[in-house]
This record gives sequence, C-alpha cells and structure tokens, in this order.
Amino acid sequence: MAIRKSKTPQSPTQRADQKRVDILKSAGKCFRKNGFHQTSMQEICAEVGLGPGAVYRYFTSKDAIIAAMAEDERRQARTMLSEFHDTDDLPQALSAITRAFAQRYAAISDAGLMTEIYAEGLRNKRVGAVIKKAETEWVDGLADMLRTAQERGQIDTALDAQQAALLLTAMWDGIVIRQAYTQEVPEGMLALFDDMLKRWLSTAAVSSKRVKPAPAPAPKKAPAAPEFDFAPEAEAESDADKTPTQAETDLRQMSLI
Amino acid sequence: MAIRKSKTPQSPTQRADQKRVDILKSAGKCFRKNGFHQTSMQEICAEVGLGPGAVYRYFTSKDAIIAAMAEDERRQARTMLSEFHDTDDLPQALSAITRAFAQRYAAISDAGLMTEIYAEGLRNKRVGAVIKKAETEWVDGLADMLRTAQERGQIDTALDAQQAALLLTAMWDGIVIRQAYTQEVPEGMLALFDDMLKRWLSTAAVSSKRVKPAPAPAPKKAPAAPEFDFAPEAEAESDADKTPTQAETDLRQMSLI
Repeated sequence: MAIRKSKTPQSPTQRADQKRVDILKSAGKCFRKNGFHQTSMQEICAEVGLGPGAVYRYFTSKDAIIAAMAEDERRQARTMLSEFHDTDDLPQALSAITRAFAQRYAAISDAGLMTEIYAEGLRNKRVGAVIKKAETEWVDGLADMLRTAQERGQIDTALDAQQAALLLTAMWDGIVIRQAYTQEVPEGMLALFDDMLKRWLSTAAVSSKRVKPAPAPAPKKAPAAPEFDFAPEAEAESDADKTPTQAETDLRQMSLI
Repeated sequence: MAIRKSKTPQSPTQRADQKRVDILKSAGKCFRKNGFHQTSMQEICAEVGLGPGAVYRYFTSKDAIIAAMAEDERRQARTMLSEFHDTDDLPQALSAITRAFAQRYAAISDAGLMTEIYAEGLRNKRVGAVIKKAETEWVDGLADMLRTAQERGQIDTALDAQQAALLLTAMWDGIVIRQAYTQEVPEGMLALFDDMLKRWLSTAAVSSKRVKPAPAPAPKKAPAAPEFDFAPEAEAESDADKTPTQAETDLRQMSLI
C-alpha cells in the first residue's frame, strides 16, 4: 500500500483515547437499545458521527467493540479493587464493593448490556477469550486481597482465598442480574449479603470443622437430578474445543425424552 | 370462521404436548448454535420438520418460544424444589439443589442459552414478564421452604426468609454463569458454597447482633463510587415504565465524561 499523507491531522494520544471512548459510548447506546445483533457497524458510525474509516481505525469489528467493553468494565472494577487492597476491615470493603456494583448497574440497560456481553462471550470465541482473561485477573486480584486480610488476621485463615474470590464474584454477578429485574438497588438483599459475609468469613468459626478446600472430588450425581428434567435438549453442539463432562453426559441421558 | 373438518386427525392432549416439546427442543438447538436473533422461525420449522402452520399453532412468535423456555425451566426447577420441601436438613437440601443446578448447566450451550434468555428478558417486555412471574413463584417457594426450616429450628429464625431466598437465587444464577465459563462443575467452589451456607444459616450465630432485615434505608452513595467510573454512558433509554432511582442519577452524573 502506498504511503500517503493523511487528510486528517495526526491525533495526539489523548485525542485518540477520547475518540475511542466516544465510539464505545455510542456503541453502548445502540447496544442497550437494540442489542448487539440488531446493531450494525453503520449504525454505530452514525451514532458517533464518524465515518467507517475512522471507526475501523479503532475497532475492526463489532466483536472488537464488545470485547473492549468487557475489558474496560473489568479493568475499571480492578482499579476500584486496588483502592481497597490495604483495607483493615475486609468485610466493610467487600460491602462497599457490593454497593459500588449495585450502583453501577442500577440502570436496567447497563445490567442488560453486561448480561448480554456474558451471553455473547459464551458463543463468540474472541469475546469469550477477553472475558476469561479479564475475569482471571479480577479474581486473582480479589484472592490477593483476601490473602492479605488472612495474614492480618481479619478473616478466617482456613478459607481457600482463590475459591472464595471465585464464589464472591459469582455472587456479585448474580446480584447484578437480579437487580436488573427488580430495577432498584436491592437494599434488603445487600444488608443480608453483608451479614452473610461477616458470618462466612469470620475468624470466630461457627463450627471448628470448616470444610477444607478438598481436592476436587469426582462429580457425583445430585440427589435431585432425576427430577430436574428439562425439556430442551442438552447438546454439545459445535463447541469445538470441549469434551463433555460426566455431568453433561448424565444430563443428556436424563433430558432426552 | 367456518367450522371445517381438519385434514389431520385430532391430536390427543398427549400428542399435542409432545409436539410442543419437540418444537421447544428444536428451537433450543437452533438458539444454542446461533443465538435467538440469528435464528428465524423458518429455521425452527425446518429443524423440527413441521410446517409454519403447525408450529404457529403452538407458538405465535419466537418471543413466545423463548418465554415458554424460561417458564418451563423455572417450573421444572420448582418441581425439584417441592421434593425438598419437607426436608429435615435444609443446608443439605440447598447443597443438593446447588449441585442439581450445576449439573443442569454443565453444558456450556445450556448455560449460554439461559444467560441469553435473561438478557433478552431485560429488553423484551413479553419475555421479561414471564421471567419475572416465574421468578417470583420460585423465590416464594424457596422462602416458604426456609420458613418451614425456621419453624423446625433448623436454621436461624432471625433470618428474613424472603430476602434470603432472593439472595440464594442470585447466588445460584451467578454460579451458573461462572460455570459456563469454566466449562466444568466447579467442585471446589461448590464445597465452599456449602460451607458458607452452614455458617450463614446456622442457628449458632457468630455474633449475637445479626443484622435485622431493616426497613430499606435510603440508597447511600457507596464509598468507592467515584472510582468506579465506566466509560459507557448510563442512560435510561426507552425503558418506558421506569423512573430513575437516586443511584441511577448518581451513576449518570458520575459516568458522563
């Protein structure tokens, strides 16, 4: 390709960053309104008021925009996390994080967008890879924070910090989705969550026999499994690089009518 | 409309039910592969091997199919729940329910489908209404079970059963989404979850001052909120029948660059 002088003046980094943010904002607006799949790159260009060439310089596809959103979201959550790293009251810090998430997703359209990003990441390998990486970094950061609190005697040292970080993140995700449906910050549930955290993480164990993070036992059949017999067929489909687990096999056997 | 003799013999209820199940199964197959929005009614007809007339007799639109899936899913979960209603070991019952969910969604395509149904329900009023109704019934059933356990002295009577049912459901949702990404039944996390449940619900309180389900306090600004400043614009969009909460207003103020 011939080297040509760009008609637009060279943007300084700051200007480029602002343009990137503008594109993400406009895309977010379109996605919230109509969903990813019903939004075209043309519509995003129109919304941000830039030509395709300008937009494609930042994002080569809609997937790249979605991936960038997922990444930005977690990166900013990690920045928030780092503010609390040296806390001397972990339950209080976790409570503040919970409320920050709840407020972040108080707008139904934001919670919906994040839920859709999660769903997309399960089918779309590119988006999925970005989410997995960002999630791993987030969970590792949180686990680090829990370990620091353990070293300082703030929370139970018998707790597996890594698994606890995973479980906490899962809880937060679930609260955000639920909140999206109730359309308000669920104060009652959040108060209960704080209480649960205190009891769960407390150094004053309820019973001395806390379940140690055992080497993962072989998946066992849930007692209730035969009753949990959904009509839709469970199939591995074209998820290329996955091998079915025992549970999947069980499920497939039980749900085929 | 003139009464006419149907060319196909009148189907008995059982046959009609089977056809309904077949359509849902085929639609599920298409949705798992390509997502709702990239699947047409024509493709569903082709997959199930029925003409549009036959399919439309059961479902007048794709939305109706998605709504039926959401409804069936929760109804069957409620059936499972009822099996445990008279349990004399609630933490064990909750653990079994958790494992049944984990196994139900061990297939990545199933977890993805459910996540997509949730996302769809936030934009699509018809699907959303069905999900809300089914969820309310589920949460009420779970709260009932918790109250029974409280009456029997199995779990702490100071716990707000309704809020605890909500929080438990949120946790399960979150675990399912997380599991979809790890693509395996997360045994380590589930063991930790059981442990958390025992500590949280135990009658032997860690501290005597369990947080009473207070009358929901006015939403307060989370300490971390100013740091949690996402780029995408938070906007109420066309969510017609909602009024912005204080938290939403805060968020909108803080996230507009």
